[in-house]
Amino acid sequence: MPKNVVIIGAVALGPKAACRFKRLEPDAQVTMIDADSLISYGGCGIPYFISGDVSDAKELMTTSFHMVRDAKFFQGAKGVNVMTRTKALSLDRPGKRVICRNLDTEAQVELTYDKLVLATGSRPNRLNIPGADLENVFVVANMGHAEAIKSQLTAGAVAKAVVIGAGFIGLEMAEALTDLWGIEVTIIEFMDHVLPGLIDPNLAGMVQKKLQDEGVTCLLGERVQAIEGQGRVTGVVTDKRNIEADLVIMAVGARPNSDLAREAGLAITPCGAIEVNSHLQTSDPDIYAGGDCVENLHLITGKQIYLPLGSLANRHGRVIGSNLAGLPATFDGVVGNLIIKVFDHAVAGAGLTLSRARAAGFDAVSAFVVQGDRAHFYPEMEFIYLELVVDRATARVLGIQGLSSNGQGLAARVDAVAAVLKYQPTIADISNLEVAYSPPFASAMDIINALANAAENILAGRNRVIEVDEFDRLFSSGQSGEAVVLDVRGWGNAEPYVKKYPDRWVNIPQEQLSTRVNEVPRDKRLVLVCNSGARSYEAQITLNEAGLTNTCNLQGGVAAIKKWGLDLLGEGPEGDSSGH
Amino acid sequence: MPKNVVIIGAVALGPKAACRFKRLEPDAQVTMIDADSLISYGGCGIPYFISGDVSDAKELMTTSFHMVRDAKFFQGAKGVNVMTRTKALSLDRPGKRVICRNLDTEAQVELTYDKLVLATGSRPNRLNIPGADLENVFVVANMGHAEAIKSQLTAGAVAKAVVIGAGFIGLEMAEALTDLWGIEVTIIEFMDHVLPGLIDPNLAGMVQKKLQDEGVTCLLGERVQAIEGQGRVTGVVTDKRNIEADLVIMAVGARPNSDLAREAGLAITPCGAIEVNSHLQTSDPDIYAGGDCVENLHLITGKQIYLPLGSLANRHGRVIGSNLAGLPATFDGVVGNLIIKVFDHAVAGAGLTLSRARAAGFDAVSAFVVQGDRAHFYPEMEFIYLELVVDRATARVLGIQGLSSNGQGLAARVDAVAAVLKYQPTIADISNLEVAYSPPFASAMDIINALANAAENILAGRNRVIEVDEFDRLFSSGQSGEAVVLDVRGWGNAEPYVKKYPDRWVNIPQEQLSTRVNEVPRDKRLVLVCNSGARSYEAQITLNEAGLTNTCNLQGGVAAIKKWGLDLLGEGPEGDSSGH
Repeated sequence: MPKNVVIIGAVALGPKAACRFKRLEPDAQVTMIDADSLISYGGCGIPYFISGDVSDAKELMTTSFHMVRDAKFFQGAKGVNVMTRTKALSLDRPGKRVICRNLDTEAQVELTYDKLVLATGSRPNRLNIPGADLENVFVVANMGHAEAIKSQLTAGAVAKAVVIGAGFIGLEMAEALTDLWGIEVTIIEFMDHVLPGLIDPNLAGMVQKKLQDEGVTCLLGERVQAIEGQGRVTGVVTDKRNIEADLVIMAVGARPNSDLAREAGLAITPCGAIEVNSHLQTSDPDIYAGGDCVENLHLITGKQIYLPLGSLANRHGRVIGSNLAGLPATFDGVVGNLIIKVFDHAVAGAGLTLSRARAAGFDAVSAFVVQGDRAHFYPEMEFIYLELVVDRATARVLGIQGLSSNGQGLAARVDAVAAVLKYQPTIADISNLEVAYSPPFASAMDIINALANAAENILAGRNRVIEVDEFDRLFSSGQSGEAVVLDVRGWGNAEPYVKKYPDRWVNIPQEQLSTRVNEVPRDKRLVLVCNSGARSYEAQITLNEAGLTNTCNLQGGVAAIKKWGLDLLGEGPEGDSSGH
Repeated sequence: MPKNVVIIGAVALGPKAACRFKRLEPDAQVTMIDADSLISYGGCGIPYFISGDVSDAKELMTTSFHMVRDAKFFQGAKGVNVMTRTKALSLDRPGKRVICRNLDTEAQVELTYDKLVLATGSRPNRLNIPGADLENVFVVANMGHAEAIKSQLTAGAVAKAVVIGAGFIGLEMAEALTDLWGIEVTIIEFMDHVLPGLIDPNLAGMVQKKLQDEGVTCLLGERVQAIEGQGRVTGVVTDKRNIEADLVIMAVGARPNSDLAREAGLAITPCGAIEVNSHLQTSDPDIYAGGDCVENLHLITGKQIYLPLGSLANRHGRVIGSNLAGLPATFDGVVGNLIIKVFDHAVAGAGLTLSRARAAGFDAVSAFVVQGDRAHFYPEMEFIYLELVVDRATARVLGIQGLSSNGQGLAARVDAVAAVLKYQPTIADISNLEVAYSPPFASAMDIINALANAAENILAGRNRVIEVDEFDRLFSSGQSGEAVVLDVRGWGNAEPYVKKYPDRWVNIPQEQLSTRVNEVPRDKRLVLVCNSGARSYEAQITLNEAGLTNTCNLQGGVAAIKKWGLDLLGEGPEGDSSGH
């Protein structure tokens, strides 16, 4: 007898599971229900709808070939029955029934199933602070929120906005509000850097610099205490100041929507997600769950991680669709691979950051390299800033993160490392990772290989390094008298620095160092600096030979200093270091 | 006692090995010799120097930070002694000496070594045909050739050029001559498609279309018999025609330059390369070799492959440098990952093509998918055309190839698959490969995942497919009466085709198919067509259910037809199919 499958939730995972299953078992009956009237939309496109890049909400709901994915489409093209405005109230597992209510008619509906899929997604977190329920305080989790925010913008009602939370959605929303709408945006983040948990402080400082260059104010390490206003928002109060605002976006994360499952007695994880096995089967073998209402096994830490991503929901959906039809597909876990557009830059990362790796118990270190995306002689070229996180004892690669104005080029490197992370690669594997080379697309010794080589030298103790955030503290702290910069570039590059900091910035070009080693200051710690960190590494070796070992090499060199925004020459806002 | 290392060859591998070794053993003595006066240049940049994208040959010889890598640079910055215009004549292995001649003074020089590195590179093949030694017949293998060709161009002496060979260098040279210099270029290739051995015919047809759209004439399956002229070239004679030309580029491959090694009694492989182990050590443990004079172990076929690439030479160089210093670094092999710019498109591939996989003994099949590089709702979007080659019995992934106007986006997908190929991934691994998703950079179900999913359906017999080259033969052969196209797109898309081919092009939109199945022609083989191959796959399932199984699904759909250049609607040169 043909199977009867019910799917609760019709945004990403639900439609994918439904369609895959129907292709495998065309004579089965599939009913997909959703409390909303809008279904099967690209939720990750919401910031681009709000920004205006995507002009019509309908575009988020169409196929690649412009068919609107509504109930009629699913019936005609996919053979899937869809019931919108239908809320699942409870599960009767012994009777294999879903008890629903039609939100328009208030009628109660009962759907029987052979197999059930829970695609109930996530719920956005909301801060429990005074004023959180004012008008113009929004979360960004569904098309309803998106349309409400956009109607505020199109009405011209917003001049100043506050975004609470500097995670992915917070940054995407900050860009959306700034770029097209010209709104004065302030991001407030409780942690001390943007994208906390997603990238490390050195890269985060570069992202923050980018945001500030684009006019976004970043307030970090600051806690929102209240939202003020009567009816509409007028301002936000933090532990440090009051900020005017006529719109507030709360982008403070999300949690699994697992109420229905919990009430039905299904196993729930400590973080509140629906527990599933590698077939995405819940503790009831006739019920599957996936997407934003489940956790994923992290293939590096071996622990569960909550990662509500549209891409995972789609892949989960296919695995569930296969299992519904008796194909034993599995979803084995994730390494976490993320990318976000930040104005004309992209930030990407896979696996563990340095801080996450350490928190997971690894004795981790990182290497940082700045290099062009193409052969350096190719006329067009953009820099990539890339960090590799490795385990000291085993040389195992744990993660990679980066920043570039060439987003696809950055993705090429991060995706390649992400792809191999589950195989537990060592540095040597990445040192010889085969990036396709020709001058318009990569370097002969590509940044990804150079990055692994740098990590190898650091692990072997051959390259003693310092990161740009540490350099900033050292140089700006006033304690810099303890250290002297030895700039090993040519005089033309070094001159303005030497003139501005005659007591602590010395120039000897790397190629002259072996013959001028007697000029090197010997009483202080030396910070070796060149444009990228490569020549200063050579200099460190020369100094080692001369018995000068109290040196450290600034990874990324002056390129990192500039990207980080440390304005050593007082050149103004382009190099403004405020916020660090 | 400090080691004494001699390196023969100073273009890519030599300098890399020298510098790595000197950083590891700064007190060692390293001497690098080269018969040429120009050293350490980016040979892969030669086509871009000839095109004018790189204006000065010096740029190919500078570091990222504009220092010219000449003998003085290597001495000062790297501590490496360089002797240019110095040709190695023979090796005295028992005496550990290299016998050299200074090409300027004719003086004989003897260099002793503890360890020797052979970085003797490759030699370009030349066709043994009448006229091959005429003026204006060039190979493209070093800066001397590059400067000679460019001086012809700048002198305005070239209006028509013939490029013999449609491999990577042939195509790069065709573009270089056409794009900036406006030269009328004809490519002549002995095999029946461009990039033979590197991509399969369906993709090759799309590359050929691109070349033709840019004004390059492609003559395939045609053999050059002679080059005509007196002194200077005036024309080329093939087995089919005479072609006027005042410049001929021979780009017919290269072979290892292993004479010195052979004469010294080192082991040589059947293809003529210097035999090395995974430490890149020759049969004499004190002599290393790498780069274009050695072969590589292919990690998929398990056989040796000759792959003269600048990127491999650089990675080999580092491995040799490490070994010279006693670090046991290895180079384990390659999967072959290549990319080439073809005007505003890129072509990339890793692992085995379908034909190479079959030649290697695999029962291989391929899947082909056309999809956007970004979320389909994102305002900017470019198509990627991607093929996956898999082993039928094991579902192991053997290779990937593709084409796109978004070169970096194509590289992101190909690099990611290339990175995992050595781990013997199955289709399921690629189906869940974690491409970083956000709408500006990828799709939620990214093309790479969709491609694996398509392959899974093909292997399982659920998706019976036809490739665009086969479709072209079927539809254009006149035997098309045997097959009817069932176009399952909307009437608006299908109408012009139905009107032009009323006897063999039928339209029933996919979403109406289950209710209109009685209208489907039953006496002929049905070729199912939509825009991309996805809806036609759905249609195939619907027809299966109705008992109509004599169907095949055109992979890539109309998008592939157009990219291939099959001009079904007679729309002119944009859709010109000549050459297929």
